[in-house]
Amino acid sequence: GYSLGVRNCSFRYLPSTAVNTTLQLQELRERMRPLNISAYIIPGTDAHLSEYIAPRDARLAFMTGFTGSAGTAVVTQTKAALWTDSRYWVQAKRQMDCNWELEKDVSVSSVAEWLITEVPPGGQIGFDPFLFSLSESLFSILPVSPGVLYVCVLLGLFNLRGNDIPYNPFFYSYTLLTMDKIWLFLHTDRVSEELKVYLNASCEGPLCVQLKGYDTVLDNLKTYVAQPGVKVWIGTEYTNYALYELITPQDKLMTSSYSPVLTTKAVKDETEQRILRDAHVRDAVAVIQLLMWLEKAVPEGKETELTASEYLPSDGCSADIISCLLFPVFLCCSPTNETSRRLTVEEMYLIDSGGQYLDGTTDITRTVHWGTPTAMQKEAFTRVLMGNIEISRTIFPSGTRGVNMEMLGRRALWEVGLNYGHGTGHGVGNYFGVHEWPVGFQGNNIPFRAGMFTSIEPGYYKENDFGIRIEDIAVIVPIQTKYGHNFLTFDTVSLVPYDRKLIDTSLLSSEQLQWLNKYYETIRKLVGPELDKQGLHEEKDWMLRNTDPFMTSGSSASVCSSSLTLIALAVALLHNVI
Amino acid sequence: GYSLGVRNCSFRYLPSTAVNTTLQLQELRERMRPLNISAYIIPGTDAHLSEYIAPRDARLAFMTGFTGSAGTAVVTQTKAALWTDSRYWVQAKRQMDCNWELEKDVSVSSVAEWLITEVPPGGQIGFDPFLFSLSESLFSILPVSPGVLYVCVLLGLFNLRGNDIPYNPFFYSYTLLTMDKIWLFLHTDRVSEELKVYLNASCEGPLCVQLKGYDTVLDNLKTYVAQPGVKVWIGTEYTNYALYELITPQDKLMTSSYSPVLTTKAVKDETEQRILRDAHVRDAVAVIQLLMWLEKAVPEGKETELTASEYLPSDGCSADIISCLLFPVFLCCSPTNETSRRLTVEEMYLIDSGGQYLDGTTDITRTVHWGTPTAMQKEAFTRVLMGNIEISRTIFPSGTRGVNMEMLGRRALWEVGLNYGHGTGHGVGNYFGVHEWPVGFQGNNIPFRAGMFTSIEPGYYKENDFGIRIEDIAVIVPIQTKYGHNFLTFDTVSLVPYDRKLIDTSLLSSEQLQWLNKYYETIRKLVGPELDKQGLHEEKDWMLRNTDPFMTSGSSASVCSSSLTLIALAVALLHNVI
Repeated sequence: GYSLGVRNCSFRYLPSTAVNTTLQLQELRERMRPLNISAYIIPGTDAHLSEYIAPRDARLAFMTGFTGSAGTAVVTQTKAALWTDSRYWVQAKRQMDCNWELEKDVSVSSVAEWLITEVPPGGQIGFDPFLFSLSESLFSILPVSPGVLYVCVLLGLFNLRGNDIPYNPFFYSYTLLTMDKIWLFLHTDRVSEELKVYLNASCEGPLCVQLKGYDTVLDNLKTYVAQPGVKVWIGTEYTNYALYELITPQDKLMTSSYSPVLTTKAVKDETEQRILRDAHVRDAVAVIQLLMWLEKAVPEGKETELTASEYLPSDGCSADIISCLLFPVFLCCSPTNETSRRLTVEEMYLIDSGGQYLDGTTDITRTVHWGTPTAMQKEAFTRVLMGNIEISRTIFPSGTRGVNMEMLGRRALWEVGLNYGHGTGHGVGNYFGVHEWPVGFQGNNIPFRAGMFTSIEPGYYKENDFGIRIEDIAVIVPIQTKYGHNFLTFDTVSLVPYDRKLIDTSLLSSEQLQWLNKYYETIRKLVGPELDKQGLHEEKDWMLRNTDPFMTSGSSASVCSSSLTLIALAVALLHNVI
Repeated sequence: GYSLGVRNCSFRYLPSTAVNTTLQLQELRERMRPLNISAYIIPGTDAHLSEYIAPRDARLAFMTGFTGSAGTAVVTQTKAALWTDSRYWVQAKRQMDCNWELEKDVSVSSVAEWLITEVPPGGQIGFDPFLFSLSESLFSILPVSPGVLYVCVLLGLFNLRGNDIPYNPFFYSYTLLTMDKIWLFLHTDRVSEELKVYLNASCEGPLCVQLKGYDTVLDNLKTYVAQPGVKVWIGTEYTNYALYELITPQDKLMTSSYSPVLTTKAVKDETEQRILRDAHVRDAVAVIQLLMWLEKAVPEGKETELTASEYLPSDGCSADIISCLLFPVFLCCSPTNETSRRLTVEEMYLIDSGGQYLDGTTDITRTVHWGTPTAMQKEAFTRVLMGNIEISRTIFPSGTRGVNMEMLGRRALWEVGLNYGHGTGHGVGNYFGVHEWPVGFQGNNIPFRAGMFTSIEPGYYKENDFGIRIEDIAVIVPIQTKYGHNFLTFDTVSLVPYDRKLIDTSLLSSEQLQWLNKYYETIRKLVGPELDKQGLHEEKDWMLRNTDPFMTSGSSASVCSSSLTLIALAVALLHNVI
């Protein structure tokens, strides 16, 4: 059946992990022709612009074979192209057959240029309006005017959770919030009586949540907008185009990049901060268990990326890890049966893990080597760590934007001509999204304020060789400075030591070494008692060994302090001599 | 006549430097009334969106009294407000009378909010369309389509200079460049026969420049645009609204932030780089002469901000300083007869100077103290210097944007809760604009490429006390890194030492100290021979004294190296003892 493909696509030279997409493409192209659609765009998201999607929404994976969490595909009658960023290039090459070309520049203009080249004059471009936010550069920018509040996908507003999407406690919904009523659109048959009581679903008034069917959102919005004097406020980043185009004429529309609910939710209150910190202590125990188990198991030669990713701490499902829903541990690439390789002491491994705890979401990456790293691996790892520390220890005025300081995560790499091709961090939720925008270090993220949680995750990836990422979650906290007020810094809440054998302390500045030792002190202080409480004695020893303060290394700071000791000795000797 | 003001504006409590603007305001308001204009906006620019303007274009100063180079005023029937940034707050308070309120938030939204509050429903806002770029947020954003090239204010295209604006070698002009002709709109009576020959002004063809009257630009553009199939490309940042609104319908218009001439001119070719570097060597001699003269003259007690600003090097007008057109030296605030104060050894002084040489434009700021600085002054100065050095020594991938690294200029200040309220740098021309956008560290500047020249100028300003700025020009140059390609760094071309008594070397990292010593070596190597050539022996000694390498200070690096000496001594002693 392979000969049906319009391109001469031979599977002989493809990896066994590649998915044959010839039939899917053929069917899509047949459907495009009578509609005179020259190009069709398939994004990797769902109607709520979710980053992680349910299997039923996996349009991109179905069409391309590529299962990474970020990508956009475009199909014409003769070509098929996938855009994804550097984290996924290796995986995309493994999973896609030769029907597909991989495009590495993920900017909107790159997709636009490709479309301009491939679509003939008069040709049309097709897309599902539910799958695009109206902020996509494909649409023009809209005028702004003040008005009433309309918000979309705002579970934070109600403090509700669901399980429509694996590993994410979300459910599909929309909300219309007005001055005198709250409409919640969801699958009403799934709503329990208890929940109805919690939501005041039986009354009508400004504090009563009226439950409406998920599929009635378009009709209800249309009716609402048709009323005279109504204005609707939407966040352009997370509202789909299908809803947006109902809000006419344009003087009824008011936009901002993010809805006010998102920007408010980004700052965690004291209770949220406390329980998120607590969750990270328990998560540190789980990650320490995993790292210790791997350290012992890998040299025995039986573990693969897949068995490692399925590892759960020995006590099984502790009550506070929701449904044992530890994320799939991510090693090198997302492990599937096809791509799983045996773990050895010859390679470096990147372990990206996280948990959905009832009190918080965690996300941590450690890079480890169970044998002897090369000098280059050690240097690259140390420079990535220097980037992590330089961001973590920075003091900055409240309201500074992450994008204006994220180069601190890259600077030690830049010094020797290295870099990485992804962002430097993202917000994180309280038992919510693991990538909770709009907090983070990207150009479209909002300014940093005290109480926000963000990941800090510089990396370095040597193609066909090894990958390094060091990721911690930090909370933004106020700091007292010598002269000024309203200054902030980061307080790291991920509490797992870095692989000691990969750290070249001679590269670290004395400030960096000082930060590292203080961080290790904090791990001992916070994770030690939890390991004791859980009776994990071997893990406690492992943690203590791995958080030993760095002192006697060849760093300039240590040279300095050890030479000061020598000076003391010399002075003592001089006294004796004179 | 003061009683004519609509507000009860008493001059008794105003500084003697304040300008009485009651009559100007009264006349403007009388003219606004019959036109039903509720608010009138007065920007500080001219029809070419120049930063520095000719006296005839000084509308803002005429109306407000304020003579700073950045500001916007708005006048209503009952209020008058001026927006200017932190550099000019002190000056604005000195120069404006109580008809005016000072607004410190210079964002467009601040002006917009003020207007929304002050202008009644149905009220109109007046402005001169020649004085606003169409990129002003007051106007909506425009669609883009490909087409023919139209560019505006492009002297760089012709390599011409003029003197319509003091200290800036510009003349008023517009250009319309098409596939088969070049129109240059200017005051034709000022064009010499020699220039006509240079421009091929007598022929008609794609390489012939047709000279047209400055005032005929609107008519000619209108006629050109009316032709079928014509498309016009403009840079939105430097094209005025009056020209823009002639380009209709909108499908004849193509826009980008900056015209391609501006972005091309931003990268200097090898010849331009060489002569710009040369101009900085001669400028360093002039600045060293000025600094040495001040160091001797100030303790004698006769010099004021004004006499210092009028200082010219002892050899008078050397042939290569065009028309002796050294910028007005800028001390504390722009000196005028009214604001000039006596210079003393009790205060810190900020000296911002620059020259228009035939081979290049220079711009340099040094902050000095001729007495004994306070500990706080020394710390603040050192931290500003650390910011300058941290940017200067940074290695970054080609195409990195200045805005993503400018926090390096602030970080040492942030550490102790200090900051500054202006940008960190701007491009500079070859005998052209001293602020040559779109190069620089601001959000709307283009990515850095090798061959661009930019200023690096962090600062710190303590209100009613002192001001610090350390400004150097640097050229962006390629650098060989250990692993990567296409990395760049800065090479400082301003060559004047910093005030030694203001540097606390114990705050500097060893890398910063190393950079500083290397920079001082370069000054000796490049400026030394020029001082010799000009026979300036005393200045040579002054320069050598002020570029002495830092070694024996209390910096951690020095502690380290001096303790290493001590160790050697200790080891020697140990050998003797044993």
